[in-house]
This record gives sequence, structure tokens and C-alpha cells, in this order.
Amino acid sequence: MVKSTKQISPHTTSPPGTLIHIGKKKREKIRITLFSYNAEAFEDKEFSSIEKLLRLKNNGNVWWINIDGLHDISAIQTIGTHFHIHDLILEDILDTNQRPKVEETDKYLSAVVKMLHPNENSIQAEQVSLIIGSDYVISFQEYQGDVFEPIRDRIRQSKGRIRSMGADYLGYSLIDALVDNYYVILEKLGDRIEELEEIVINKPSPPTLKLIYDLKREILNIRKSVWPLREIINNLQRARTSLISEAISPYLKDLYDHIAQVIDTTETFREMVSGLLDIYLSSVSNKMNEVMKVLTIIATIFIPITFIVGLYGMNFEFMPEIGWHWGYFAVLLLIVIIVTGLLLFFKKKKWL
Amino acid sequence: MVKSTKQISPHTTSPPGTLIHIGKKKREKIRITLFSYNAEAFEDKEFSSIEKLLRLKNNGNVWWINIDGLHDISAIQTIGTHFHIHDLILEDILDTNQRPKVEETDKYLSAVVKMLHPNENSIQAEQVSLIIGSDYVISFQEYQGDVFEPIRDRIRQSKGRIRSMGADYLGYSLIDALVDNYYVILEKLGDRIEELEEIVINKPSPPTLKLIYDLKREILNIRKSVWPLREIINNLQRARTSLISEAISPYLKDLYDHIAQVIDTTETFREMVSGLLDIYLSSVSNKMNEVMKVLTIIATIFIPITFIVGLYGMNFEFMPEIGWHWGYFAVLLLIVIIVTGLLLFFKKKKWL
Amino acid sequence: MVKSTKQISPHTTSPPGTLIHIGKKKREKIRITLFSYNAEAFEDKEFSSIEKLLRLKNNGNVWWINIDGLHDISAIQTIGTHFHIHDLILEDILDTNQRPKVEETDKYLSAVVKMLHPNENSIQAEQVSLIIGSDYVISFQEYQGDVFEPIRDRIRQSKGRIRSMGADYLGYSLIDALVDNYYVILEKLGDRIEELEEIVINKPSPPTLKLIYDLKREILNIRKSVWPLREIINNLQRARTSLISEAISPYLKDLYDHIAQVIDTTETFREMVSGLLDIYLSSVSNKMNEVMKVLTIIATIFIPITFIVGLYGMNFEFMPEIGWHWGYFAVLLLIVIIVTGLLLFFKKKKWL
Amino acid sequence: MVKSTKQISPHTTSPPGTLIHIGKKKREKIRITLFSYNAEAFEDKEFSSIEKLLRLKNNGNVWWINIDGLHDISAIQTIGTHFHIHDLILEDILDTNQRPKVEETDKYLSAVVKMLHPNENSIQAEQVSLIIGSDYVISFQEYQGDVFEPIRDRIRQSKGRIRSMGADYLGYSLIDALVDNYYVILEKLGDRIEELEEIVINKPSPPTLKLIYDLKREILNIRKSVWPLREIINNLQRARTSLISEAISPYLKDLYDHIAQVIDTTETFREMVSGLLDIYLSSVSNKMNEVMKVLTIIATIFIPITFIVGLYGMNFEFMPEIGWHWGYFAVLLLIVIIVTGLLLFFKKKKWL
Amino acid sequence: MVKSTKQISPHTTSPPGTLIHIGKKKREKIRITLFSYNAEAFEDKEFSSIEKLLRLKNNGNVWWINIDGLHDISAIQTIGTHFHIHDLILEDILDTNQRPKVEETDKYLSAVVKMLHPNENSIQAEQVSLIIGSDYVISFQEYQGDVFEPIRDRIRQSKGRIRSMGADYLGYSLIDALVDNYYVILEKLGDRIEELEEIVINKPSPPTLKLIYDLKREILNIRKSVWPLREIINNLQRARTSLISEAISPYLKDLYDHIAQVIDTTETFREMVSGLLDIYLSSVSNKMNEVMKVLTIIATIFIPITFIVGLYGMNFEFMPEIGWHWGYFAVLLLIVIIVTGLLLFFKKKKWL
Repeated sequence: MVKSTKQISPHTTSPPGTLIHIGKKKREKIRITLFSYNAEAFEDKEFSSIEKLLRLKNNGNVWWINIDGLHDISAIQTIGTHFHIHDLILEDILDTNQRPKVEETDKYLSAVVKMLHPNENSIQAEQVSLIIGSDYVISFQEYQGDVFEPIRDRIRQSKGRIRSMGADYLGYSLIDALVDNYYVILEKLGDRIEELEEIVINKPSPPTLKLIYDLKREILNIRKSVWPLREIINNLQRARTSLISEAISPYLKDLYDHIAQVIDTTETFREMVSGLLDIYLSSVSNKMNEVMKVLTIIATIFIPITFIVGLYGMNFEFMPEIGWHWGYFAVLLLIVIIVTGLLLFFKKKKWL
Repeated sequence: MVKSTKQISPHTTSPPGTLIHIGKKKREKIRITLFSYNAEAFEDKEFSSIEKLLRLKNNGNVWWINIDGLHDISAIQTIGTHFHIHDLILEDILDTNQRPKVEETDKYLSAVVKMLHPNENSIQAEQVSLIIGSDYVISFQEYQGDVFEPIRDRIRQSKGRIRSMGADYLGYSLIDALVDNYYVILEKLGDRIEELEEIVINKPSPPTLKLIYDLKREILNIRKSVWPLREIINNLQRARTSLISEAISPYLKDLYDHIAQVIDTTETFREMVSGLLDIYLSSVSNKMNEVMKVLTIIATIFIPITFIVGLYGMNFEFMPEIGWHWGYFAVLLLIVIIVTGLLLFFKKKKWL
Repeated sequence: MVKSTKQISPHTTSPPGTLIHIGKKKREKIRITLFSYNAEAFEDKEFSSIEKLLRLKNNGNVWWINIDGLHDISAIQTIGTHFHIHDLILEDILDTNQRPKVEETDKYLSAVVKMLHPNENSIQAEQVSLIIGSDYVISFQEYQGDVFEPIRDRIRQSKGRIRSMGADYLGYSLIDALVDNYYVILEKLGDRIEELEEIVINKPSPPTLKLIYDLKREILNIRKSVWPLREIINNLQRARTSLISEAISPYLKDLYDHIAQVIDTTETFREMVSGLLDIYLSSVSNKMNEVMKVLTIIATIFIPITFIVGLYGMNFEFMPEIGWHWGYFAVLLLIVIIVTGLLLFFKKKKWL
Repeated sequence: MVKSTKQISPHTTSPPGTLIHIGKKKREKIRITLFSYNAEAFEDKEFSSIEKLLRLKNNGNVWWINIDGLHDISAIQTIGTHFHIHDLILEDILDTNQRPKVEETDKYLSAVVKMLHPNENSIQAEQVSLIIGSDYVISFQEYQGDVFEPIRDRIRQSKGRIRSMGADYLGYSLIDALVDNYYVILEKLGDRIEELEEIVINKPSPPTLKLIYDLKREILNIRKSVWPLREIINNLQRARTSLISEAISPYLKDLYDHIAQVIDTTETFREMVSGLLDIYLSSVSNKMNEVMKVLTIIATIFIPITFIVGLYGMNFEFMPEIGWHWGYFAVLLLIVIIVTGLLLFFKKKKWL
Repeated sequence: MVKSTKQISPHTTSPPGTLIHIGKKKREKIRITLFSYNAEAFEDKEFSSIEKLLRLKNNGNVWWINIDGLHDISAIQTIGTHFHIHDLILEDILDTNQRPKVEETDKYLSAVVKMLHPNENSIQAEQVSLIIGSDYVISFQEYQGDVFEPIRDRIRQSKGRIRSMGADYLGYSLIDALVDNYYVILEKLGDRIEELEEIVINKPSPPTLKLIYDLKREILNIRKSVWPLREIINNLQRARTSLISEAISPYLKDLYDHIAQVIDTTETFREMVSGLLDIYLSSVSNKMNEVMKVLTIIATIFIPITFIVGLYGMNFEFMPEIGWHWGYFAVLLLIVIIVTGLLLFFKKKKWL
């Protein structure tokens, strides 16, 4: 995850608005698909080149152009030119370390958001950029594979109202799908917190700390993806643009509430993880205490009696007790008394 | 409580506004009751189906429809259609992980709030949703059993002004009852903090930490229920809607102050719990110190004298002291002197 | 102080605006006094019942009615009816766990504030409620005994401008007296912090931690009383009401500054107390270190030489050194060398 | 410094606006000086009484009246009457625990600020109050000795534009001098932090903690002096008063930036001091570790071999090894092997 | 880095607006260069004195005057006079401890920002001041060597749109280059955090703590440079000045987002560093535990058996066991039993 801090330096030697793909080349060839639909019909096609797609004519349908892979800069440039997208926005789309943001122009809204993928032990953020025009939505993804399949199904099967609504509703639906996905991620994190809780309380070990630290870092990363989103939706709500119809407004409000809930849960998780750290440290310190107690009890019992037997191990010529017939047994008795006394003392101290 | 983080993922595969009940199926059959009242009369009925209720005509009375159980989606859909409730709001009512919120439309206000139930060792949150119209209030609860019984009594016995006021006052009364219930919860928490304080100071043990952590988590959960409430009442106060009459305004202000007090107390509890953790850690460390001191005193006293007796246990053929008549007693005297000296040293160090 | 979290649950079973006294019954009989004054004359009377007082006529004087004791609800109801005080405000007056607040109506301003009494080891908050009308101030206190004596003296002796000003100035003076009293409380707290500092640095012991924790809790409680006060005065300053004359405005500003200073000092105290905790924990850990060092030095010196004397305590038949004439003295010399070497080592390590 | 929390209780028994000097009587007799200047000429006089000064007539010059010492209340009352200063403002001037503040009236602006004096081990705050009129500035100080000497030189030598500007510029210059002085204080604090850093890393000892705590407290005190200043300058910038001419506006902006920088540095220092505490605690714990390691190594090596020599110190009549000729040397060899083995073990554990 | 707190005291003895260079004299002679360009042509010259440059006439080109070195006050004064720059702004340019800020006047905008240079183990901040006029930009740097080389290349090779845009775009480009450079710095910091993570988890040692503390301090310093920048760009965005053309607005928005991202990353780094400290402390404490465990195991095993051999080392005349033929072997057996028992006990405790 720290690795995400690598490669954050953008085109420090090129002018602003220069298109450079920042990020790993994640697919060999970019994949271009088009969903074209209206209330009555829909079409779903894949194109081998962007030019072929742009040659089509849009007869009043809603178009959803999806691009998987960002490394084919000329294709993205072509789209940009065709849809009159500002160079700075194209630059943001290509810079996969871009902070989530929204831009509003006369012709389109652009939004950069993060799609979270749960890997085995970490959460990976993939950048998804949306251009929402009056009758089209263009989505740019880093790889193939996304959380939009349910939306595709809805379009195909005309479920819900998506087919009868415009591009603004499609844009909303895509962001909504991303936010719903955050719930899945948080659920998994919640499970991991629960597991860690179990471990921390019952059998903490040095590697546990690493787990807590990793969890903390992932929550930090989710925060970075989620917090700006709230601002984004807020800006969309207040945007006085004809691109967002009145009918969308309750959906945006609902979306805003979902994001607020994601943020709430993230913050609660954060506090719980810091609570875990406290328990861990305390458990370690408790174990230390236990170790020390065992040492102290053993040492405290044996040190005095070892002295006594040492005493009568001395070789002085004149040691009266040595000659006594019951001397040895008297010493044994003394040792028993001392040991018993110390055990009672420990009992009283509640060390046993 | 962490378990509340489970099942938070909503309909990730269905369109927004699709009604899905998220939460445990908490009752076999939903229970539908109607309170219909005006200043002069009141009626209190239970219905076997929602259709029967909706067939009734409301002749200028205030109606309070209460639904216990959220799993009968068709019934809720029926209510929604009858009262023209937006699908997104119905969706919120059914999603029991919804964050507390308020929505304002022309025809009704909707509010989602949390009712807290104190269980043995934890606090459980039940979602209560209210639809407040011009002459009706609909309340949706997850289970039967609530904190509204006093309000029912007031309606039945025409106590206070409730019978002479409108639906807005009823809606206020319901939220007020929920907030009053928070005081009960906080009182119980206060008792538990006091008990923990006693334990932490007098006999801290490893399980105490778990208790502190659980307490912290519950307070975090209460915060999540209470903080959004402040915003809600604030929004209601500023709402320019004919649904809330002028006469309600001082009551809302009062309610706002109560919530502020609940928040204040919650925050104070939070700081006190974190103070408890400090005491616990320090108590543990003090106990450790005590253990170490006992070990150190015993070891420090016996190690030197054990050396001395070892010295005269050596078997050298020529050891002049061995042959001395009073050698043994001289050694005993030396030991007494050393022990006395060390005890005085510890006295000075205030270890005894 | 945690006890203040008890009994916080108000009339959860009665309608809002029902008068219930929440708090301990602090006096047998309520005490009713009236100060009636103008620039020329003043009168100071005690009444056995509220009805007798209300039978009097107010001829352009300023009236200050003071009630000590809140348990006689009918008397308070009588006052409420006479002065047209809203039921919710009467309810707040009686609920001694009320958060400090101010209410503004056409006929009067109501303010709920806290009077702090320094007890031996804790600070007790008493609720004082003020109703400030055009020509009267009514003050409600929980017990007899307050910080208003200087104001009574000023009225009696016509000191300052109080006699020539209206009820608004009297109301201001009462709140000002409460705030001035906070300085006294903070002074005492400052002394206790200084004492604790002394203790923590010089002779920390387990009970010290309890003292720090108690101090922290008291500061938390003072905060709860003081922070809302700032908002209250702020609201009074901005109140567009004829009840507060222009001439009062600089006094309110001054009062606001005093409260800001009280808050500043409280926050500084809070940081200092948390600093004390750090010192305490560190002192404890330093003491532990010292103990460990003594043990380590003693053990490290004697363990090797005890081994040596043990070596020559062995009973092997053939041990050449045993027979040497100077063997014993050679061993003694070896021991001296070892001890000297270890002492130099400790010197170098700065453990001595 | 805690001592500054003493004597904070103001005139709790006197009416607001009563003049009482709160603070130590810092000079025997107050010192009154007057600078009278215009672009062409200046005069610099000391007066034995305030009445003599007030008898002079101001012919269009800028007057700067400076009073050192606040205990001569009648003199301050005389000034107050002469310049029509509100009693509450005079009260603030005399209360040396006043929080920094600014007041704006028709005839003058009043400002209360703090002058910091670096003493050996602490920083002392002296209150400086300014009354800025249309053609005069009155400054009140607790003692003689201030940071205004450079300004006096500038007036005397007509350096900069001070002689050609009005009283507002003089007032600005005085506050600017105070703020410049904060830089000096912060520089000294920065040096102390650097020294402490050195100490904490190289030779931490229990008294170091006290130094850190004192530093923390001083930074807290500086904060208390500086934070309100930002608000003050902000208020001056927005003040719509003819007392501040347009020409002063860039100077106020510059001053605001300086204060912002002082605040930034203070906050950074605060974080650095809390970082020092972490290092200190960790250094102490590292030292503990080192001590423990030495003990453990010594004990772990000698305990087993001491057992072996004890074994052959037993007096059983039949112990075959005892009679062996090379028994003793075999034991010595065994001891060497054990010691070597343990040393290798420690090497592997990186304890050596 | 703390050293940056040195020399922060400015001209405490000179009037505001006096030009004093605060900072090290970083170059022998200041270096003056001029870039003069328009869409068609550009010129790049170095001048030996500022007067020679100012003698040139600007025929509608954009001029970029760059000054390396701030110690030649008369040269800077000359520029100030020529371009009508306010004395306070010149003062800010020369005071290299100036907080980043922006000033807006009729004729020019001035901005003070920080250029960060990564040194081996620390990050050094160099102050860069910009004066942006209608057709010129003047940049002041402390040393030669900057991050503007790519911009120079763009002007020379007419890359991007820089040659066809005005002075406002040039000013934006310079700040953008500085911010892009922050990414490089953060990348390096991210690498160092990663390395530290490795060290802290695998082989923490006392010097590690110093590394963590240094990292923390550097992040604090970056924050100080970056946070005000956000405000600066915000102010520029809202500035209603003809100096910034409409066309620049999207670039400023983009710049703002970059700064927001730098701040986000800085804050995340800060939290990660504080997480590192927790791991470090816990690792140290874990190592301590391990040391203690070894000691305890060794001591606990050998102390009892050493007692036993001591017992039979006593010289009593009558000790029956001594004479038994198998006594010695019985003792050996007993020892084996004890050791085995203790090892099983440790196994159960999971200490082995």
C-alpha cells in the first residue's frame, strides 16, 4: 500500500495538460465497449478501435462508452478531441494517482473516483474516471473487471428505471455502484477487525502488531478515497447545470447519505483499530508480568534456603551445629517453614 | 456490536429504490396498529392486513399507524403507494443499517432514527422510521416492544396537550421519547463506568481491559446514533414547511437541547473511559513494580551472603580462617551486619 | 462526580412540559425573598409563601425574586402562571441536570446556568435559573447559600450603578457573579495542580494516579458548565430584544471575554493534567529502572564470584590448586580483580 | 508559570467597572512619559504627575503617553476621565490577567496585549494596554523596561515613516514591536528544544522529563498570548472606523501574517516537544533493556555452571566421578563448553 | 531543520518596511537573467547589473526576470522602485523565513512560496518569491539551481502553450513546477517510510527512534510549507483582478487539486510515522519480553536444582542420605525429574 506513494510524481518535466499515463501498464490492448440504449431498445458492442466507435451516429439514445486500460494515449486523445474534453481533465484521467474530484463545464461533468478491490491481505484502489455529457457517459478504467456488471444487467433487462432515464442517471448509477462496493469492503474489514480482536485478546504475538498496523494503513487509504467523495457529491448537488435533471436530485441526496455512512463506519473502524493496539500492548505487558511473577516466586523461595544450605556447607573446623545429631533435620524443618511462609505471603499478595 | 458491521452491504446488485429488507427477520408476522384521535375521542385498533386499514377513511383525526416488523415488503410497498412515499425513502426504511437522517418533501417529512435497547452487556440499536404527514404519522419498527408506551397512555388518557395537537406534535413526541430513552441508556453506562473505576483502581486484571474496550465500543456506537440526530433536529427547525406548525418550534428547541446534553454526556463518558485505560495500564505497571521490588530485595540481600558462605565452603588445604575457633561466628556476625546494612539502604530508598 | 450521571433520566413517562423536580430534595421548605429597588429606595423581604409575594404591586421598581429550593412544584407553577412562563422553561428550571442554555421570548429571557461550589475534594455544580423580564428578575436555586451576596450588598449600599439600572443589568450582574466565581474555582484547581506537580515529580505513588484522574474529571465537568455559557452570552449579545438595553452591551462583551478566559484556562489546565499523567507514568518507570539497576549490579557482581568459590568447593580427589599453599589467597585476589573490573564497567555505563 | 493561575480571581465582591489593580505592585511610583511629535519636531518629557501632563495642550501633534506601573489607580482614573475611557476598559487595563482583546468605540480603540520577557528558565508575560485615539496613543505597562526602545529611536531620529504618520501607525508599530519580540522568544525556545533534543537522545535522566514538561507549559502559555492576537488584528482589519486610515491596511495585513507565522512555529514546537517526550520515554525504556540484557547474559551464563560446581560439592560417600583422576579437568572442560555455547547463542540473538 | 527556527527574529530594531536580508548569504554575487518571449520569438540573457536590464524596453513581450541571491539589497530596491513594489512586500521577499503568502495589488500579484530541496537526510526549504505583473514575472530565489528548468525548456522550444499565453500563465507554471516538485519529495519520503518500516519490524535499535523523529520533523516542516499554499491558490482563484485572465482559471483549479493531494499524502504519511513509533515501541517491548523469558527459564530451571545440590553439600556429621550407596544417583534422578517437569510447565505456558 505504501507502494501507492511511489510513482506519484507526475510529468515534472512536461507542460500542464500533456498527456502522460502514470501507473502500471495494466493491459496489453485497451478494450472499448459501447452500450447504446433508450426506453425501447439497447445495443451492446465491442470495438477494436476508438475511431470505429466514433464513426457511429447517436440518434437520441444514451451512450455509455467504457474504456478498460489507460495506456493507449492516442485513443484517449481521440476521445478527448471528439467530445471537446479539456486537456487538464484528460491529464487527470491518465494520472492514476489523482485525488477523487469533480469538474463541471458547460458540455459535460467529469468525475474521478476510486474503485476498491479487496485482495487477499490488502485493498487495491483502481481509478475510474467518468465524463457525463447530455446524452453520453464515458468511463475510463485501469483494468478490465469492475463492479458495474449489475448496472449492465439492469440495462440489458430493463430493470428499474435506468432505461427510461438519461445519462445523468447512468452516471449516478455508476458512482452508486462504486459506493455500494465500499460497503462490501468495509464488511470484509469488519470481519478482519473481529478476527484480530479474537487474536489480540487470546494469543497476541509480535506479528499481531504488524496486522494491526496494516489494518490501520488500509483504513487510512480508504479514508483517502472516501472523504473527497462527500465533497464531490455535495458539489454535484449544488451544481446549477442543465446536465443534471431535477429528477436526479433525491438520488444524489441518497448517495450522499450512503457516503456519510461509509465515512462514519470508517471512522469507527479507525477508533476500534487504535483500541486494538491498546489491548495488544496491554496484553504483551500482562504476559511480561506473568513471566516476571513466575521468576520472582521461584527465586524468592529458593534464594533464602539456598543460603541456608550454603551456610552449613562451610568448612570451619569449629561449627557446633554440624556435630548435633538432629542438626540436619532441624535445617530441613527450617527450610520447610521458610517455604511455607513465603507461599502464604504470595497467597496474600494474590500472586498465586 | 462489531457484528453490526456485518450485513451492511445493501442491494449491490439491484437498482436504487428497489425494496429489500436488510436485517434479521425479527418477527413472524408484521403487526399493524392504528391510533386515531382528536381532542374529543380516540380509537385504538389492530389490523390483520394493511389493506384493511387503508380502506378506512380519516375524518379529520390524527392517525398514528405503527408497523412492527419490516420483512413484509409488499405491505410496506402498499403503504408507500397509498401515501405517495418516494421509493428511496422506502428503501431507507427497510435498510436497518441506515444512518439517522431526515427528508423533507411537500407531502410529508421522513425521519430515520435509532431506538437503543440495553441488553445485558451491550446496547442494541433498533431502527425506527417515521413518516410525518399533515394528519398522520406512520412509524416503522424492527420488532415489537418500544419506548412509546407512555405516549400511548397520554393519548388514551388525554394527558398533556397531545390530543389537542396535530400530527407534527405526535412526531415530535415520538422522537422525544427516543431521546429520553437515551438518558436511561447513559445512566446505565454511567453506572458501568463507576463499577469499572472501582475495579480498575482496586483489582485490575487482564479481563478488565476487555471490559474497558467493550465500553469504548458501545460509546462509539451511541455516538453514531446520536450525532446525526442533532443535525436532524436542526434541519427540522429550519425547515420552511407547512407540515410543522409554529407551536411546535419551542418543543423542537427543547429537544435540540436534550440531544446536545446527550452528546455532551457521551463525550464526557468517552474521555472518562480513555482515562480508565490510563489508570488500568498504570495499575498493571505498578503491580509489576511491586513484584520487581520483592524480587530485588530478596535477591539483593541473599546474593552477597550466599557468596560469603560459599567462600568458606572452598576446600583449599590452607585457609587460615577455617581453623580459627571463632571463625564461624565471625562469619555469622558479618552476615548480620550485611543484612542490616542492606535493610537500612532499602529503608532509605523507601522500598520497604 | 460520576454520580451526576445518575438520575439524568427525566420524566420518560410523562408528557413534555410536565413539571417534575429532578434532583435531591435539598431543603425542607423553599425560601422566597424579594429585593425591590429603584435609584432612591430599596426593600428586602422574606415571604412565607409565593402567593403573599405575588399579591404585592410593583410600582416601577426593579424586582429581584429569589427562590431557594426547587421541590415545591406548586409554588413554581404559581410563579410560572403569574409571569406567563412557558411550561418547557419551567420544566428546565426543575430539571437540575439541564445543560446551560438561554431562551428568548417576547416577555422575558430565561437562562439556566451552573454555580460551582468547591467542596473538599470535588466541585459541586448547583443549577441556577434566571427569568429576566422588563422590570423583574426571578432566580431559582437548588439550595440556600450562593455567590450573590456582593450583589445584595451593592443594592443595599447603592454601590456602583446597579440601583440606577434596570432588570437587564441585574440579570447581567448575577451571571457575572457566577463567572467571577469560576475564577475562584480555577484558582483552587491551579493550586491543586501545583501540589500534584510537586508530588508527581518527587514522590509518586499509586494513589497519585487516582488524584490525577479525579482532577481530570473535575476539569471535564467544569468544561461542561462553561462551554455552553459562551454560546449563551453570544446569543444574548445578538438578541434583538427590547429586554436588553443598549447600555448593557459593553457589559455583555466584557462578560464574554471573561468566559473566554475561563475556557482558555480550563483548556490549559486540561493539557497540564495530561502532562502530569505523562510525568507520573515516566516517574514510575524511572523508579522501576532504579530498582532494576540495583538488582543487576548486585547480581552481576556476585554471580561470577559465587561461581568461583563454588568451583573450589568441589570435592574432587585430584584438584591441584587445592593443595597449593597460596591457592586460597590467589582466589581472593581473583575475586577482587573481578569485582573491581565489574565496578569499572558499571562506572563506564554510568549505572553508578 | 502555574503561578499565573493564582490571583486570577478578580473583584468578586465589587461591581463591574470598579477599578482594582490585580497583580503584583511592581514599581514604587508610576512613571509617566510623553512623546509629542510631528513630521518636523518632537519632544520627549517625563512627568511627576499625570495632572501636569494633562494640563498641556496638544497642537496637532501625535502624542504617545506611556505609563509604567498600574498600581496608582487614581492616576489611571484621571487619564480615563480625561480621555473618556469606559470604566470596563480601565478595569481591563488594571486586571493584568486579562485575555488579549481589542475594543472599538467612537473615540478610541483599546487593545490589551502581552509582552513576553524571557527569564532564565521561564517566560514571563507582562500586560501592555493601548488606547489609540485620533491623535494620541496611551500605553500602560506593568513595569519599566520594554521592547519599544527601537520605536523611540525611530521617533527621535525620524527613521522610517513614523514621524509623518498618525497615531494609528504608532499604535500599529507598538503591536508590531511586541510581535517581533515573540520571534526572539521563539528563537530562544528553539535553542532550548535543540539542546533538549541533544540531551534526550544522548543522556536522558529523570530531570530531563521535568525540562520537557516545563517547555510544554511555556509553549502553552505563549499560545494563550498569541492565539487571541490573531483575532484582534483580524478585528482591526475589518473595523470600519475612521481611527484607522487606509494607509495602515497593508501594515495590518503584514502584521497578521507575522502572527500567523508565530502561531505556526508555536504549533510546530508543540508537536516537537511531544515528540521529545516520546523519545525520552523510549530512551528510558532502551536503557532498561540494556540493563536487563546485561543481567540476563551474566545470570544465564553463570547459573548453569554454578549448578555443576555445586553438584560436585555434594558430600555423598559414593560419587564415582569424584575419584576419577581427570574428573576435575573434565568439569572445567564442560564449563568451557557450556559458556562457549551460551555466548554463541547470545551472538545469534544479537544480544552481544 | 530545527536550525530553521534560528534567525527567525527579523529587524526587531528597524521600522517596518526596512529592507534587511534575513538568511545566509548564499551566493557571492546575485545572478540576473531575463527571458523575453512572445508566440513568435524569445530571448534569454544574463545581466551583470539590474540597471542594465531595466534600461531595456519591453515591446509587448512577456518578461521573466529571475534573481538568484537575495543579499544585494540595493539591486532589489532598484527593482522595487522600478516596478512600484510596496516596501512591505520587498521586506517579505528578503525575509527568507516568511510564511507562504499571496498579496494582491492593482499592478501586480506577489506570492511567497517554498521550494523544497531533498538533501541526504533532510529536506531544505528555499524561499521563492514571485511578482506577477500584467506583462512580466519577477522571481527571487535564495540560490542558483531550481526546479524551473523544464519551464525554461518549454519557453525555448515553444512546447505546450506557454509562449502564446501571458504572464499569468507563466506565474502559474512556476508555482505548478514547485508543487510538482513536492511530489518528488513525497516520493522520497515514502521510500524512507518504507525502509523504516522494514527496519522497525525486523531489527529495531535505539537509533531507529531518532530516524522516526527526524522523519516526523520533516513532515511537520513540509506541512508548514504546503498548508498555506492551499489558501494562496484559493485566494488567487477568488481574486477579482484583471491580472489573472479567465483562461487561467481551470489551471488554478487543477493546481488546487494537486496541492490538496500533496496535503492528503502528507497527512497520511504523518499518521503512518506515528504508527511506526507505536510499532517501534512495541518491538522494543517485545524484545525485552524475549530477554526476560530466557532469563526466567534459565533461572527457574537451575535455581531449584542448585538448591538440592547445595543441600547435600552441607557438612553435617549425621546426614543419613550421604551414606546411602545410590544416594548420589537418586539426587541426579530427582534433578532430571524437576528439569523435565519445569520444561513441560514452560511448554504449557507457551514460553518455549
